[in-house]
Amino acid sequence: MKGEEAIRILITGGTIDKEYDPLTGELIFAKSHLSNILIQVRCKVRSVLDEVMLKDSLQMRSEDREEILKKCVDCLENRIIVTHGTDTMVETGRVLGSNVKGKTIVLVGAMIPYAFGASDALFNLGCAFAAVQALRQGVYITMNGKIFPWDNVIKNKESGEFEKLKE
Amino acid sequence: MKGEEAIRILITGGTIDKEYDPLTGELIFAKSHLSNILIQVRCKVRSVLDEVMLKDSLQMRSEDREEILKKCVDCLENRIIVTHGTDTMVETGRVLGSNVKGKTIVLVGAMIPYAFGASDALFNLGCAFAAVQALRQGVYITMNGKIFPWDNVIKNKESGEFEKLKE
Amino acid sequence: MKGEEAIRILITGGTIDKEYDPLTGELIFAKSHLSNILIQVRCKVRSVLDEVMLKDSLQMRSEDREEILKKCVDCLENRIIVTHGTDTMVETGRVLGSNVKGKTIVLVGAMIPYAFGASDALFNLGCAFAAVQALRQGVYITMNGKIFPWDNVIKNKESGEFEKLKE
Amino acid sequence: MKGEEAIRILITGGTIDKEYDPLTGELIFAKSHLSNILIQVRCKVRSVLDEVMLKDSLQMRSEDREEILKKCVDCLENRIIVTHGTDTMVETGRVLGSNVKGKTIVLVGAMIPYAFGASDALFNLGCAFAAVQALRQGVYITMNGKIFPWDNVIKNKESGEFEKLKE
Repeated sequence: MKGEEAIRILITGGTIDKEYDPLTGELIFAKSHLSNILIQVRCKVRSVLDEVMLKDSLQMRSEDREEILKKCVDCLENRIIVTHGTDTMVETGRVLGSNVKGKTIVLVGAMIPYAFGASDALFNLGCAFAAVQALRQGVYITMNGKIFPWDNVIKNKESGEFEKLKE
Repeated sequence: MKGEEAIRILITGGTIDKEYDPLTGELIFAKSHLSNILIQVRCKVRSVLDEVMLKDSLQMRSEDREEILKKCVDCLENRIIVTHGTDTMVETGRVLGSNVKGKTIVLVGAMIPYAFGASDALFNLGCAFAAVQALRQGVYITMNGKIFPWDNVIKNKESGEFEKLKE
Repeated sequence: MKGEEAIRILITGGTIDKEYDPLTGELIFAKSHLSNILIQVRCKVRSVLDEVMLKDSLQMRSEDREEILKKCVDCLENRIIVTHGTDTMVETGRVLGSNVKGKTIVLVGAMIPYAFGASDALFNLGCAFAAVQALRQGVYITMNGKIFPWDNVIKNKESGEFEKLKE
Repeated sequence: MKGEEAIRILITGGTIDKEYDPLTGELIFAKSHLSNILIQVRCKVRSVLDEVMLKDSLQMRSEDREEILKKCVDCLENRIIVTHGTDTMVETGRVLGSNVKGKTIVLVGAMIPYAFGASDALFNLGCAFAAVQALRQGVYITMNGKIFPWDNVIKNKESGEFEKLKE
């Protein structure tokens, strides 16, 4: 547990950062809410916010995952949080888990946008912050209050919940 | 990391559970929000909610801390979250840290009530859920996104932030 | 101003009642929030909630407007609030304004769903409640804090604001 | 209904503008939320915000009511909203109602602060905006979705609701 090292937060989009566009009535990405969130929740962990992209994870292609991977490998920090859409979070986890060594990486997202009422975003982010500081090297997903290693997790499309692949 | 064991949540009060009484204009405890919170944030970790008391931590006396300690020792669970007022959280942490062996206990609270806008409660709780699952035996405080061992933390009364006692 | 007569609230859908579906990531109608809203805001005006439909107003056809018109004519109440999507609110206002005599009718909606943060729904509804009690017979729209007679209002599609058609 | 004239908003404090001080755990006045509120709710009525004081209405003395009265008489606007604590709103209404002629004045407040969840503030303010535009000269209170003339209203201390003094 090394709380003093900075944590890099790679922002890639996903539901957590979506908001409502009153003119079109659609959900859009305007700008990331992460810096405002960290102020609201009084987070005092030294963090480097790095907006890589703002994408619905269903729109992500292999180039996007390569870019996230490159960021994880190249950055100086050894502890990294990746905010990400839930639909393909497991897939990106697999790319990172298979290729990054010697770092602790936690992927996290939300089922309800931060900007809406009754969101799970702040809780999930809290899980990610503690997990990335407490866990040893490896790639993890924190959703539904649980911590999953990248190679033992699926998103159940019926329930919208993350589950172990096997016991 | 044993996500499958139930986590006991000892509710003791504190700012996190305070709400506004429109008739008196004062902040009161009506009932704990914890069960509603866990539904809102889609937490799927098996949890046992246990309301020990609903007190402002400035009102807690040594009997209260003894009661919390007894609960921690007697309960079957090895992973325990204690929701607690921030003003004497460090003091209760000391009682638990000096007396409980073989369990992982995380104390957590909030600077702004959950029932208000712009609260830090959900983020802090998320930190506590991940910390209690990821950390080895011991007593910890999670506030401001950080994880502190019970014997190296103070609350800075000026800033309202939790800090290391010594480097 | 006859506060004691009941007000009929015809619910027809619109942004005010939309919510986020975490499974599909889309905005949907689940059930109307009106009864919860009236409890939250401590409204003590005698009201009859009447859910006519839950539609995006872009999907409304002339049969829908006929149904709303029939409800306005047939109901016993002389003071009626119609919650409605903003995109064709002016059109429904025209149908009601041309055909209902002897009643005070106020159409109202929201640019941001009630269920989201930073919504205009509660303010707009407050405007509608006061307007329907204070105004003499006629059909009106209350949006942006303003009160418009049905035959002198347009929605500016660029700004999303309601404006007078002519001075 | 003259929507084009500016409305003067006299801010005097009250629950609507209270917020939580995380350092002391008490409810305080920091600064008025009115300008932020009017942006959030997309209010486009021309308004002049005038912060007269920020007081709990139980602390108001006759000098304070005289100051509010003077503001109402002296200002150029003929339509005035006064935000006010609910405990002595009726008393201030009496001072204004007995002394101001030729203007429409609406007093309004909230039982739950705007800054908290589940507040009645936005709804009440919406009522005030519509009432001040729609009503003829006189002094009124809008609370609980109702409109009361200043000389026929009391606050029921048991229920926290505003009621007619006599039928």
